Amino acid sequence: MEGKAQASSSMYAADLSSIKAAQDRISSHAHKTPVLSSETLDALSGRKLYFKCECFQKGGAFKFRGACNAVFSLTDDEAARGVITHSSGNHAAALSLAAKLRGIPAHIVIPKNAPKCKVENVIRYGGQVIWSEATMQSREEVAAKVLKDTGAVLIHPYNDGRIISGQGTIYLELSEQIPQIDTIIVPISGGGLISGVALAAKSINPSVRVLAAEPKGADDAAQSKKAGTVITLPETKTIADGLRASLGSFTWPVVRDLVDGIIVVEDREIIEAMRLCYEVLKVAVEPSGAIGLAAVLSESFRNNPSWDGCKNVGIVVSGGNVDLDVMWKSLKNGV
Amino acid sequence: MEGKAQASSSMYAADLSSIKAAQDRISSHAHKTPVLSSETLDALSGRKLYFKCECFQKGGAFKFRGACNAVFSLTDDEAARGVITHSSGNHAAALSLAAKLRGIPAHIVIPKNAPKCKVENVIRYGGQVIWSEATMQSREEVAAKVLKDTGAVLIHPYNDGRIISGQGTIYLELSEQIPQIDTIIVPISGGGLISGVALAAKSINPSVRVLAAEPKGADDAAQSKKAGTVITLPETKTIADGLRASLGSFTWPVVRDLVDGIIVVEDREIIEAMRLCYEVLKVAVEPSGAIGLAAVLSESFRNNPSWDGCKNVGIVVSGGNVDLDVMWKSLKNGV
Repeated sequence: MEGKAQASSSMYAADLSSIKAAQDRISSHAHKTPVLSSETLDALSGRKLYFKCECFQKGGAFKFRGACNAVFSLTDDEAARGVITHSSGNHAAALSLAAKLRGIPAHIVIPKNAPKCKVENVIRYGGQVIWSEATMQSREEVAAKVLKDTGAVLIHPYNDGRIISGQGTIYLELSEQIPQIDTIIVPISGGGLISGVALAAKSINPSVRVLAAEPKGADDAAQSKKAGTVITLPETKTIADGLRASLGSFTWPVVRDLVDGIIVVEDREIIEAMRLCYEVLKVAVEPSGAIGLAAVLSESFRNNPSWDGCKNVGIVVSGGNVDLDVMWKSLKNGV
Repeated sequence: MEGKAQASSSMYAADLSSIKAAQDRISSHAHKTPVLSSETLDALSGRKLYFKCECFQKGGAFKFRGACNAVFSLTDDEAARGVITHSSGNHAAALSLAAKLRGIPAHIVIPKNAPKCKVENVIRYGGQVIWSEATMQSREEVAAKVLKDTGAVLIHPYNDGRIISGQGTIYLELSEQIPQIDTIIVPISGGGLISGVALAAKSINPSVRVLAAEPKGADDAAQSKKAGTVITLPETKTIADGLRASLGSFTWPVVRDLVDGIIVVEDREIIEAMRLCYEVLKVAVEPSGAIGLAAVLSESFRNNPSWDGCKNVGIVVSGGNVDLDVMWKSLKNGV
């Protein structure tokens, strides 16, 4: 499987055509998010930075794009049985909201130790919460039972072509808003977001650099790229709660072939970037959302001559769902 | 003077033509700020809300529009001698930045007790800081001396037609971005912002309601409207540090004639609106910037049948310059 560097679009779970179809499908539901810029941050980084603010997306994160595309891709028969996922994060809330818009049930399996605010988001958007134990085994068992009982359609948070296509719409918008983009930096976790963005970007303009930003304490994607095969970590340790997942069978080939580099940053760099987002950009971001700025300001990026040509850099600010309390303590105490 | 309710544009320090000229003058320097919306906040308020986010303006506040228009209105001879103001707030930073863009000096008289972060903003944008004692008398004396020594042009923060025209560009942008706006809510302090917005709005569409939002502890504008003459308060007490000034000779006539109502809110309502801006909109705002949301959610607004027709409400989020520390303490402790 490895070694096939040249990529034809049919090799992957999504392509430019499926991403354009997703844009048509979701455009009346999703926000076209604004792009912010700051001369202060340009001066700090030595480049022109364009922040694609998905924290202003419905549900406070990019996840709504993929969830909405998946839900509205279903036939009426499929849709009538509802959708299901097991997640305690932004995907669960996004799927609940998308299902609500289509008027179908969303069954969300949530571990008992999930953060309160995330559970509240699911409930606010009308998702039906089904509790499981905290273990992955319990989550999967409970989900399997609900699947069997309801016949609902499982919508995986990232390892799904419909999800990848939805996330790719970010690049379609950004390249229209800022045509001079020569680089895009995207947080990486399970790889749904960066797969969609990379497939769109490389199809439209193969010379655009697609870079991932990953926390040191969950750098499985960087290790996987280096090893040429998927590496999963026995445990992860990072403040970026949205970036702890592992690559999937549909996202790894895209990351392997189309992502030009992975920038690994420390949690203290993420926290400093959160502070800059708040103080300079005036935007509330979660740690995962600040990692792109952390990456472009990092020593490892600045000292790598491969990236000297990155002049007009798009940064995907993936989400803004952070408790004030958590943000304050991080900024005050550091790591 | 009172009683002349009908307003011809020549009565005021600015008009639609001067506001359009300001737009031409500043458009290559100022950000066209995005408009955000949130179904959660729509549901809370029972109306469609459109947040015009001037916290994303250069310098973090709308003040750059007026300052930029004033600085670029000067002849080359005038400009060569520089500009001067006495202020410790967003206007001082905005004027410094505008002067820097034109390549002329900005002399900023700052009282010794000014907040550190505001002084840092002035210095960051290249303003020349001249210290005065904290009293208004000392500020004016020092400014008069600098004026005499340098021949610089005094740019008042709000009582100036060039400033009013610059601030009015916000409405030109908003009415293009959201044509269905039927109401606009604007923070009121010295009245420069609302005067510009009201002159633009009433010229373009006289049926648009222009409402001011004012803190209870500095409600001189509400008292003035009631009395039919300018009232100044012996002291003010509000968390909204940007809303403590009194109306000026150029702004009062506009407020008197063209502002349809003033909504007075408590500091606790401002703090709750700051929290909603942060948690729902994902935007960092200063207390003055959150007051429009506080107003639209207030009992006095909701229970006033005069405003039942306000369906599509523009809210000017005037600025985002707040210390994290201050915001945190306000949200944690309330008033």
